[in-house]
Amino acid sequence: AYSTKEENAARPIGRYPVPNKKDMPYDIVELMEEVEMKTGFLPNVFKAMSHRPAEFRAFFAYYNAIMNKDTGRLSKADKELIIVATSVVNRCPYCVVAHGALHRIYSKQPALADQVIVNWKLADLSDRDLAMLEFALAVCRADNITEEHFQKLERHGFDREDAWDIGMISAFFAMSNRIAHYIDLRPNKEFYTMGRVPRGER
Amino acid sequence: AYSTKEENAARPIGRYPVPNKKDMPYDIVELMEEVEMKTGFLPNVFKAMSHRPAEFRAFFAYYNAIMNKDTGRLSKADKELIIVATSVVNRCPYCVVAHGALHRIYSKQPALADQVIVNWKLADLSDRDLAMLEFALAVCRADNITEEHFQKLERHGFDREDAWDIGMISAFFAMSNRIAHYIDLRPNKEFYTMGRVPRGER
Amino acid sequence: AYSTKEENAARPIGRYPVPNKKDMPYDIVELMEEVEMKTGFLPNVFKAMSHRPAEFRAFFAYYNAIMNKDTGRLSKADKELIIVATSVVNRCPYCVVAHGALHRIYSKQPALADQVIVNWKLADLSDRDLAMLEFALAVCRADNITEEHFQKLERHGFDREDAWDIGMISAFFAMSNRIAHYIDLRPNKEFYTMGRVPRGER
Amino acid sequence: AYSTKEENAARPIGRYPVPNKKDMPYDIVELMEEVEMKTGFLPNVFKAMSHRPAEFRAFFAYYNAIMNKDTGRLSKADKELIIVATSVVNRCPYCVVAHGALHRIYSKQPALADQVIVNWKLADLSDRDLAMLEFALAVCRADNITEEHFQKLERHGFDREDAWDIGMISAFFAMSNRIAHYIDLRPNKEFYTMGRVPRGER
Amino acid sequence: AYSTKEENAARPIGRYPVPNKKDMPYDIVELMEEVEMKTGFLPNVFKAMSHRPAEFRAFFAYYNAIMNKDTGRLSKADKELIIVATSVVNRCPYCVVAHGALHRIYSKQPALADQVIVNWKLADLSDRDLAMLEFALAVCRADNITEEHFQKLERHGFDREDAWDIGMISAFFAMSNRIAHYIDLRPNKEFYTMGRVPRGER
Amino acid sequence: AYSTKEENAARPIGRYPVPNKKDMPYDIVELMEEVEMKTGFLPNVFKAMSHRPAEFRAFFAYYNAIMNKDTGRLSKADKELIIVATSVVNRCPYCVVAHGALHRIYSKQPALADQVIVNWKLADLSDRDLAMLEFALAVCRADNITEEHFQKLERHGFDREDAWDIGMISAFFAMSNRIAHYIDLRPNKEFYTMGRVPRGER
Repeated sequence: AYSTKEENAARPIGRYPVPNKKDMPYDIVELMEEVEMKTGFLPNVFKAMSHRPAEFRAFFAYYNAIMNKDTGRLSKADKELIIVATSVVNRCPYCVVAHGALHRIYSKQPALADQVIVNWKLADLSDRDLAMLEFALAVCRADNITEEHFQKLERHGFDREDAWDIGMISAFFAMSNRIAHYIDLRPNKEFYTMGRVPRGER
Repeated sequence: AYSTKEENAARPIGRYPVPNKKDMPYDIVELMEEVEMKTGFLPNVFKAMSHRPAEFRAFFAYYNAIMNKDTGRLSKADKELIIVATSVVNRCPYCVVAHGALHRIYSKQPALADQVIVNWKLADLSDRDLAMLEFALAVCRADNITEEHFQKLERHGFDREDAWDIGMISAFFAMSNRIAHYIDLRPNKEFYTMGRVPRGER
Repeated sequence: AYSTKEENAARPIGRYPVPNKKDMPYDIVELMEEVEMKTGFLPNVFKAMSHRPAEFRAFFAYYNAIMNKDTGRLSKADKELIIVATSVVNRCPYCVVAHGALHRIYSKQPALADQVIVNWKLADLSDRDLAMLEFALAVCRADNITEEHFQKLERHGFDREDAWDIGMISAFFAMSNRIAHYIDLRPNKEFYTMGRVPRGER
Repeated sequence: AYSTKEENAARPIGRYPVPNKKDMPYDIVELMEEVEMKTGFLPNVFKAMSHRPAEFRAFFAYYNAIMNKDTGRLSKADKELIIVATSVVNRCPYCVVAHGALHRIYSKQPALADQVIVNWKLADLSDRDLAMLEFALAVCRADNITEEHFQKLERHGFDREDAWDIGMISAFFAMSNRIAHYIDLRPNKEFYTMGRVPRGER
Repeated sequence: AYSTKEENAARPIGRYPVPNKKDMPYDIVELMEEVEMKTGFLPNVFKAMSHRPAEFRAFFAYYNAIMNKDTGRLSKADKELIIVATSVVNRCPYCVVAHGALHRIYSKQPALADQVIVNWKLADLSDRDLAMLEFALAVCRADNITEEHFQKLERHGFDREDAWDIGMISAFFAMSNRIAHYIDLRPNKEFYTMGRVPRGER
Repeated sequence: AYSTKEENAARPIGRYPVPNKKDMPYDIVELMEEVEMKTGFLPNVFKAMSHRPAEFRAFFAYYNAIMNKDTGRLSKADKELIIVATSVVNRCPYCVVAHGALHRIYSKQPALADQVIVNWKLADLSDRDLAMLEFALAVCRADNITEEHFQKLERHGFDREDAWDIGMISAFFAMSNRIAHYIDLRPNKEFYTMGRVPRGER
């Protein structure tokens, strides 16, 4: 337990022990099975967080409240792009790889996340998306956020409620990136290839 | 609404509108009244977050899961010290001032938080507390966390479950500091003086 | 001598030995007694610098020439605010704590120094005071100082002689902060509470 | 007055006006004449500081107390080397050029200051001189100074009184560099060539 | 010409004009056709550099001298890994994407370059490969390179000739990354998917 | 071999062995003799690079293609100034000292390179030269280069071909500085004094 160097050839998904399914609370098993059904595999963040059931529940309830809300101007692809761009700053392997994959799926743009990972300012982004990432990255760096930041967003059609949404996603993943670092959370290998080839071309 | 420059003399507590109590969901009002009873005033973070009821619930449920758990070796003062030291890095007025006050209350050491705010390495801290803050700050900076980090904590009596606790508090406040920045959250004036003079001497 | 870890419980005021009063030159004793009379206690910087009488005299003569001059637009509170804001950059415990206290006394604003210590740009400061600190911090960081810096100050009513005064205080404490670091100079405990509670309310 | 762009072709020595000699206090004129006699020309720092007679006196009295004291292990060349190495960090044209010249004169090593200006760690310095500069630069950067810093100096023959001397020179020029920046102080052209060719070879 | 915003939908490969093949010197056309034959498409760096025939020749002759030499312990995959890791530091879209693709081809490890792009220290690399990248990145940052750097490489089987090879590749791409930046060189879209799916599995 | 600490008093010119002239390929000897004839001594970069004949040829062919081309608005002195200013950022002793000397020779301004070495923004440079260095330094830092960069150059008479020339020299020396670092290349002592005294005055 607790080690990232185990006997079996494969590197473990993180440095904390993952309980056996039979020892997990029922609501956690249920959520995991639902996710696995939908995604086709169980993302490692679910396994890793199950080490602490109370924090598992708090983490995914929060995630759900901000990622699955219907209001506002952020599309699913927008939200994933914010996560990718900010997680790069924190050099978080799990979040960059997993949410890069989700961005490819939602945006149907197979190269954009890779561009943002290297250099977001040079990526093939609209001015609106650049403004969105600029705000997200200011929050990510814990900059002082001023009226100018909000006005710049407004010029691209984002109101202050959208700003809250962008800021909250950036802030939540500032937390997630850091949790992933101390857990040494590793991405599932499926994420590396997900969404790279358009469905029709495969 | 949304402005930090209002007509009334006092600077508002943040840049997002705070709903009237009568428009808030009942569970939020209830929590607020409980906190106000216990603390003697309602910390502004409760007011500010009530702008988004679902996120209010998620935020304080998470906070409760990590700050009010009974297990592990972190005292209430330890937890507040971690929050102060990491919030200084993010230059977050609300978190530094509010949790500096809570640290004074719990630790009964009226000058220690002020020392940590200026320069934690020169503060009057035990080697154990220095090791705890060193780990918290590595997580705060989103450093890669290695076996050496855990071994150093172990030399001061913290096991890997304690490391998780330290890391999670640091990570949660990495989020909170950033939320406070985009909300422009201001500390209640009560926090500045709380716990400065020992009860007997007043 | 020379150590910061002595047998007696209390941490010494610095790492260099402090001579006995009877071994000090008379002019130094005289100055110390005058300061102690006025302040109610002898700030540790006087004790620490008495280790080098010639440098003691040079240091306090310089301090006096810039801090106690009557000309210019800087109030006593302005000068202390400059010292607090720049000493935070250098993470100097003595200067931040001692001059934070003096700022509270002179400004009669018990929370402002604490705000500046965490994040000067978010503190409750007038535009004039922000401009003053912006110049002081440019000098503190040893930035190239350009005509634009002076013009910005002029827009807030500071002429070039005031700029010199701001710059000189910033420069002098760039020196003081560094001396305090190699001496490991500790603030007197009185400074932590000075000026926190308005006289009438105590 | 106050401008660095004057009608005459030559760039002024700084941005503050320099009084006419006949308007200066007698003690300042006297000191200037003594320096000019000894050096062959009047270094611009004397002219620039005469704009503020009280500060002129304080500045040069302090300079004299630390640069012309006889005690300790620092040679005149050592002191100049400290000034050069730390003034490079602050990118101060006056101090680097003027004290680079003085180093060449005192050390009789015409290339060493130029090497230190580019990259002190790669300069042809003894281990003792590297240790001396390492301490000076730690003070220059306002690092926390620990017992390890002093022990490292001791291994190269510097006791704690020498450490104070190194630290004080570094701290004093932290001030001087910043004053030079806001004055926009320019080096006399004589400094660029002083000491480059050994006396015998000219 | 010279613009990155042209009428046709597609973003141009760079901001400098690319000559028509018929206007190019014969040796350049010949090299291009050879490369296109081998790779299946013509990487944009060849087109962009043809704007300056003399520099085209010098650039690819240099590239050839260091990338296609047979001596030393660096495999083709090693060389590509060095390019990826150092080009990430300079945030160079072309070099990261093109050489990430080449690494996948040569190493037959489809996920490793993506891991190195996010956080090389957490990638699934052997200690030998970590040591190789550590040296390459020290050169990339223009650090002073000391005996310790070479000794560390030796502990992993690299002699000083290998160190030169690693250093030279890092240095050459320090140049290439910067050329790509001022040209605004864009990767061919083929690079994003090359080598992601093992040949057998397609 | 390979060591920078040899028995003979003099520090070697670098850490890689330099072959005997009789073992060098003829074209390399020929080039060396031509350079030595012209300069009066053989700059150490030629000796150091002869350790790798193929890379020697590639390096100097590239150097020649960009430094000795006749087109464009950059004078010989301009090119040396770019090299000095960018090599300072990388703290490269060889390039700063050697090209500082060449700048003095070509520009006939004996103090300007020394000024640029300390602080290019405060050097006695025309607005045109400042614009040229600003672009060179943006390339040197591997900044994203935008249309604004080119427009700023254009305002000072540099077209996009000149921008390429400035960028290419900056990029080439980004490489050279790094090569010099891993070779530990030392400047010939002749460079320190070259061009300091105008010919007529000697």
